[in-house]
Amino acid sequence: MFLTRTEYDRGVNTFSPEGRLFQVEYAIEAIKLGSTAIGLKTKEGVVLAVEKRITSPLLEPSSVEKIMEIDDHIGCAMSGLIADARTLVEHARVETQNHRFSYGEPMTVESTTQALCDLALRFGEGDEESMSRPFGVSLLIAGHDENGPSLYYTDPSGTFWQCNAKAIGSGSEGADSSLQEQYNKDLTLKEAETIALSILKQVMEEKVTPNNVDIARVAPTYHLYTPSEVEAVISRL
Amino acid sequence: MFLTRTEYDRGVNTFSPEGRLFQVEYAIEAIKLGSTAIGLKTKEGVVLAVEKRITSPLLEPSSVEKIMEIDDHIGCAMSGLIADARTLVEHARVETQNHRFSYGEPMTVESTTQALCDLALRFGEGDEESMSRPFGVSLLIAGHDENGPSLYYTDPSGTFWQCNAKAIGSGSEGADSSLQEQYNKDLTLKEAETIALSILKQVMEEKVTPNNVDIARVAPTYHLYTPSEVEAVISRL
Amino acid sequence: MFLTRTEYDRGVNTFSPEGRLFQVEYAIEAIKLGSTAIGLKTKEGVVLAVEKRITSPLLEPSSVEKIMEIDDHIGCAMSGLIADARTLVEHARVETQNHRFSYGEPMTVESTTQALCDLALRFGEGDEESMSRPFGVSLLIAGHDENGPSLYYTDPSGTFWQCNAKAIGSGSEGADSSLQEQYNKDLTLKEAETIALSILKQVMEEKVTPNNVDIARVAPTYHLYTPSEVEAVISRL
Amino acid sequence: MFLTRTEYDRGVNTFSPEGRLFQVEYAIEAIKLGSTAIGLKTKEGVVLAVEKRITSPLLEPSSVEKIMEIDDHIGCAMSGLIADARTLVEHARVETQNHRFSYGEPMTVESTTQALCDLALRFGEGDEESMSRPFGVSLLIAGHDENGPSLYYTDPSGTFWQCNAKAIGSGSEGADSSLQEQYNKDLTLKEAETIALSILKQVMEEKVTPNNVDIARVAPTYHLYTPSEVEAVISRL
Amino acid sequence: MFLTRTEYDRGVNTFSPEGRLFQVEYAIEAIKLGSTAIGLKTKEGVVLAVEKRITSPLLEPSSVEKIMEIDDHIGCAMSGLIADARTLVEHARVETQNHRFSYGEPMTVESTTQALCDLALRFGEGDEESMSRPFGVSLLIAGHDENGPSLYYTDPSGTFWQCNAKAIGSGSEGADSSLQEQYNKDLTLKEAETIALSILKQVMEEKVTPNNVDIARVAPTYHLYTPSEVEAVISRL
Amino acid sequence: MFLTRTEYDRGVNTFSPEGRLFQVEYAIEAIKLGSTAIGLKTKEGVVLAVEKRITSPLLEPSSVEKIMEIDDHIGCAMSGLIADARTLVEHARVETQNHRFSYGEPMTVESTTQALCDLALRFGEGDEESMSRPFGVSLLIAGHDENGPSLYYTDPSGTFWQCNAKAIGSGSEGADSSLQEQYNKDLTLKEAETIALSILKQVMEEKVTPNNVDIARVAPTYHLYTPSEVEAVISRL
Amino acid sequence: MFLTRTEYDRGVNTFSPEGRLFQVEYAIEAIKLGSTAIGLKTKEGVVLAVEKRITSPLLEPSSVEKIMEIDDHIGCAMSGLIADARTLVEHARVETQNHRFSYGEPMTVESTTQALCDLALRFGEGDEESMSRPFGVSLLIAGHDENGPSLYYTDPSGTFWQCNAKAIGSGSEGADSSLQEQYNKDLTLKEAETIALSILKQVMEEKVTPNNVDIARVAPTYHLYTPSEVEAVISRL
Repeated sequence: MFLTRTEYDRGVNTFSPEGRLFQVEYAIEAIKLGSTAIGLKTKEGVVLAVEKRITSPLLEPSSVEKIMEIDDHIGCAMSGLIADARTLVEHARVETQNHRFSYGEPMTVESTTQALCDLALRFGEGDEESMSRPFGVSLLIAGHDENGPSLYYTDPSGTFWQCNAKAIGSGSEGADSSLQEQYNKDLTLKEAETIALSILKQVMEEKVTPNNVDIARVAPTYHLYTPSEVEAVISRL
Repeated sequence: MFLTRTEYDRGVNTFSPEGRLFQVEYAIEAIKLGSTAIGLKTKEGVVLAVEKRITSPLLEPSSVEKIMEIDDHIGCAMSGLIADARTLVEHARVETQNHRFSYGEPMTVESTTQALCDLALRFGEGDEESMSRPFGVSLLIAGHDENGPSLYYTDPSGTFWQCNAKAIGSGSEGADSSLQEQYNKDLTLKEAETIALSILKQVMEEKVTPNNVDIARVAPTYHLYTPSEVEAVISRL
Repeated sequence: MFLTRTEYDRGVNTFSPEGRLFQVEYAIEAIKLGSTAIGLKTKEGVVLAVEKRITSPLLEPSSVEKIMEIDDHIGCAMSGLIADARTLVEHARVETQNHRFSYGEPMTVESTTQALCDLALRFGEGDEESMSRPFGVSLLIAGHDENGPSLYYTDPSGTFWQCNAKAIGSGSEGADSSLQEQYNKDLTLKEAETIALSILKQVMEEKVTPNNVDIARVAPTYHLYTPSEVEAVISRL
Repeated sequence: MFLTRTEYDRGVNTFSPEGRLFQVEYAIEAIKLGSTAIGLKTKEGVVLAVEKRITSPLLEPSSVEKIMEIDDHIGCAMSGLIADARTLVEHARVETQNHRFSYGEPMTVESTTQALCDLALRFGEGDEESMSRPFGVSLLIAGHDENGPSLYYTDPSGTFWQCNAKAIGSGSEGADSSLQEQYNKDLTLKEAETIALSILKQVMEEKVTPNNVDIARVAPTYHLYTPSEVEAVISRL
Repeated sequence: MFLTRTEYDRGVNTFSPEGRLFQVEYAIEAIKLGSTAIGLKTKEGVVLAVEKRITSPLLEPSSVEKIMEIDDHIGCAMSGLIADARTLVEHARVETQNHRFSYGEPMTVESTTQALCDLALRFGEGDEESMSRPFGVSLLIAGHDENGPSLYYTDPSGTFWQCNAKAIGSGSEGADSSLQEQYNKDLTLKEAETIALSILKQVMEEKVTPNNVDIARVAPTYHLYTPSEVEAVISRL
Repeated sequence: MFLTRTEYDRGVNTFSPEGRLFQVEYAIEAIKLGSTAIGLKTKEGVVLAVEKRITSPLLEPSSVEKIMEIDDHIGCAMSGLIADARTLVEHARVETQNHRFSYGEPMTVESTTQALCDLALRFGEGDEESMSRPFGVSLLIAGHDENGPSLYYTDPSGTFWQCNAKAIGSGSEGADSSLQEQYNKDLTLKEAETIALSILKQVMEEKVTPNNVDIARVAPTYHLYTPSEVEAVISRL
Repeated sequence: MFLTRTEYDRGVNTFSPEGRLFQVEYAIEAIKLGSTAIGLKTKEGVVLAVEKRITSPLLEPSSVEKIMEIDDHIGCAMSGLIADARTLVEHARVETQNHRFSYGEPMTVESTTQALCDLALRFGEGDEESMSRPFGVSLLIAGHDENGPSLYYTDPSGTFWQCNAKAIGSGSEGADSSLQEQYNKDLTLKEAETIALSILKQVMEEKVTPNNVDIARVAPTYHLYTPSEVEAVISRL
């Protein structure tokens, strides 16, 4: 069975006899090896929280960026290949800036997500910006626009879904169950912060510190928490 | 036998000794894994209904779009890879807008369908918009033009047929049988809504709710039903 | 032996040690799976008749087009992959329109056929209009020009022949034998219609109805028979 | 041994360890499957004669063209893939017309042959007019220019030779022997016609008729014999 | 297991079933064969030290460059394929000069590092400057900008991290442990020099001399130590 | 061992583990199958002599050209694939004409040889004039320029050497030995003619006649011997 | 093990699991088959000496060029594929002439060497001047610029080193040992000539004569020794 699979993989973007796209499935495996990230939408705004995996005490924690700003009103958390994520985020930054310049208003969160996924879908096509393989990364895109706060989840196939709450990465299975138990639509932003970090704590092997997690909110603008702000959330656990 | 097949697949778009195009057949398999969609044509207009497969209670049902508007007078339901469908729909939207701009009148439903299929047929050709593999999606295209209402069905080979009623996706076999039994040309739009949803109900594993199905009509303009409109149809079952 | 063949197929357009082009031969197999089509030339004009294979009662018979107009004075019947045939027909339509525009007169039937075959021959060449594999379709091209009525037969290799009568598709072997027995140069158009349909009737599994066959003539202009005109021919059998 | 060969074929235009080009050799095999063609040079002009292989009584014999005019003073007979030959002949027609236009005089027969062979040699190079495989056809090019009558023979490798007489196709071996016995430089054109047809008769399985052979001469201009002219030659056998 | 790997490698930039990119992992192996390089960040500036591996006494030690200047305020040490590193450094030099020209100020260290990694990430994409395989080199980028001194570490995947101290190359494992023991944020530049060289001494097989190591600092401008300056550091060990 | 070789051949222009380029070596094999050609340099000029291999008495001997003029002062003899040689000679003719036009003087023999070899070296590079495989031909280039007479020998790798005398083709081994025995720098052109033809006679299976050999000299201009001039040399043997 | 290697070679420029680039290693093997070349740097200038391998007494020794001038102040000796070396030298000649034209001063020896190596590194990239495989040649580049005399050594990977003395080619191992024993920085140019030739003599199978070795110096301009100058050095051995 396994040997047969390898036959179909070589064409980067071809169907297997069962109608599957293996390179996309393998890229999804890359994300299962990644650090865990969590997003929660509340009426006040969206919270993102990520595990940072500081492999050495000599590493500068702030340089391990797993939450990034796309525009004033959009941020994203990522799991998988960070270099791939940077390419997607850079693409989204250019798109949102172009939109502001052309139309004099911010790009909606859905359009921004769609633009990211259009790039992700076209792997193997030889376009200038696209890659020769799927992007090995999932994103949780948090934003706030004329429709209020929203949270999107993207995968390497270029598909996206809007969610109330979602976890990605190696601990996503357990984290998703916890989110379903604890989430309700009337959470305050503060409660969402606490839930996100407490769930992250469960799936992490190490003790949670301001060094090994990052938190951000879009409410209604993007803000990455300072170490002391993270410390404050930790103290509430 | 199976091994021999793999030999022919590697060339994305080549014939097997029996005169078959395997990549197209495998893409059709991808659709058999997809959610079920149903279309019915009446004299008053066309009805589309789809199963939405909400995999998590935290997913925003409205973000799982399996019925999309192409132009005022054309909509489509899809089964298979949603990201592929988005590319086709986006292509059709540009084509219909260009047509309106160039000729000052809406594009006919058949021309729109042909434009979609031209793109689908040219996979593996290295064109700008085409893909390196077949589009893994089937569409039910509902429209209304100078010839009245019409319903088209497309498959990954770039072929299309005009139908009175058609089901696609994992439950299509049973649904097609039911449609043949229940369809007649004098159905009202209201009766068509009821038939579509009752058949969808049979092939779905879950209870039908406004959250896990979508309904739309083109009669003569495209309209996606609100949750309360869907609820009204459910209540008639 | 069979394994050896596969070695040569991967290059889409290369010779086998025996001097054969397998992809072309496999494409010809695709046509043997297709529906039957028949053409007869008379002094009054040419008749084309095709089997339509309506797989579902919900399919719109008129949307299964297996006879198409190329120009006022040329039509064609097809067997094999319909989407491929559409590309060839569209190409021929552009060529004949360009000819009319450039020279102020209709293109001859032979030149039109040659233009179609030039495109078919160049598969695998990476040209803009050509495909990466042979076109999986045979055409019967019926026309009328300054040389009177003519009937051409094309195959996936890009070769064409002029015929008095010819059958293609899954029932072509039996149909060709019947044509040789029944054909003579002094047939009237009416007699040709009757022969075409009676032979089609022999090779079809279902009863012949205006729904599952199409008839057209070029005498001297293209005309696709209405259901009642088809009914009239059926009644003469 | 055979398996090893297949390894080298996949590169369309690469040498085998023995210094051979297999695709060219396989293309030559394609010609050995073709119908027989014969050419003879006399002081009065050149005669070409071909077997037509009419596979069905419903085929229009005149549409099976195996002798074609290139320019007023040049014609050619062919054996192998007819669609390939058409591409070469079309190329030569354009070259000879361009030459007339640019220099106000006919192109010599050798230059025309060289132009054909340049195209044949460049297979697999990705040029606009060249093919991805060798042209599977041999030509006998008959012409008349300032140097008097001449006869050239080309093969799929792009090589050509000038001959007094030559046979190509499935019956070429026997026909070449007969030509060596019967040819002398002082033949009249009429004697050459008779020799060509009598040798063709020996290698053909069917009875020779004006329907299944074609004869042409370049003396000094190209002329394809009418059925009655062919009949006249047959009657002299 | 090993055989299976080879199947996936041939596509230069494709995922294995476990979600891994083997060519990147193999490139990282290339670095494990390279000479050791060490970087330390202090408040006064950054120190880089490298082993030079002089394979022959006839080699000019100064021509074995494993520390290079990128701009006045940025330098880098490297391990792996030196020719690959030169391409990256040359790219970074052009980027920093362009930045100075366009904006009238030096490029930040992070932007310079990002520019290098963008190029590294795009291997296999067929761009003008990118390569067909990953760059087989890791860099320690030392710089000083408006944010003070900084040290970055890049790998062949195009990922980068900011560090306080880091070792790369064949002796990196032991050197990293030693750095974790001996590093603290209040080191003087002089102490950092001593630590770097003493750790390098441990992992080198030969005696440390001004010939077989290089030292550089960015404090705040790039300076490559002269042999006598290196000698002075050695004497302090 | 042999199987291993085939692995390396598929890349047209790649090294084997032993540092060999197999396609070039195989092309050299193609020349060993070719007819023999001999060149001798004297103070009076250079003599070229070739075997013509007339395979049929109906072939026009003068059309088997194995010695060709490049410019007034340069000619060449060839062994291997004649169609390949024609491409090289045509290239050289254009180069020498361009040189005369640009600089008003003939191109030197060495520059002409270098230009031919530059084209031969670049096989597999996808350039416009280069081929996808090595040119399967060796040339003996005879010329006369400001440095007096000279003789060059080229092989499929694009390398060339200047010689006093050289044989190529199937009989080259024996012919080279004879040349070493009989050559001295003070030969007259007449003696060189005699030596060349007597050596050619030894390696040919047939009797030497003006029909099956060609002789040419560059002394100081190119001249291809007429049959009677060849007869005169034969009579001196 | 060996089979595994072949798997990785097919991609011309990809890493093996151990982080190696096999095509580069195989190209280095090509050089080990080449003739020996030696370079020595003195304060007065640089000496280059090469073995010429005259395979036939009929070969013109002066046409076997293994030492070539790049510019007035730079020359190089080579070992490996001579046709490859010519391409590199021609590239360097253009670069140095462009430099003189643009800046009105000679290019430095290091910049010239870097320019050569940039071209060598980019094999397999599809650039206009680069090749599809590594250049199978090593160079010893001798030059004299504002920094005095210098000697560089390049290999097929595009890496270069500055040396005091270096041997390349089949006899390089023994020659390098001898150089290490005999070299010191205070050698006169005359002593360097003697050492170079005496070492070459040891590794050559034949007796050293002015015919089978070449010597050149850059002191400060390039000069290739005449046969009598070579004779003079030989007489000093």
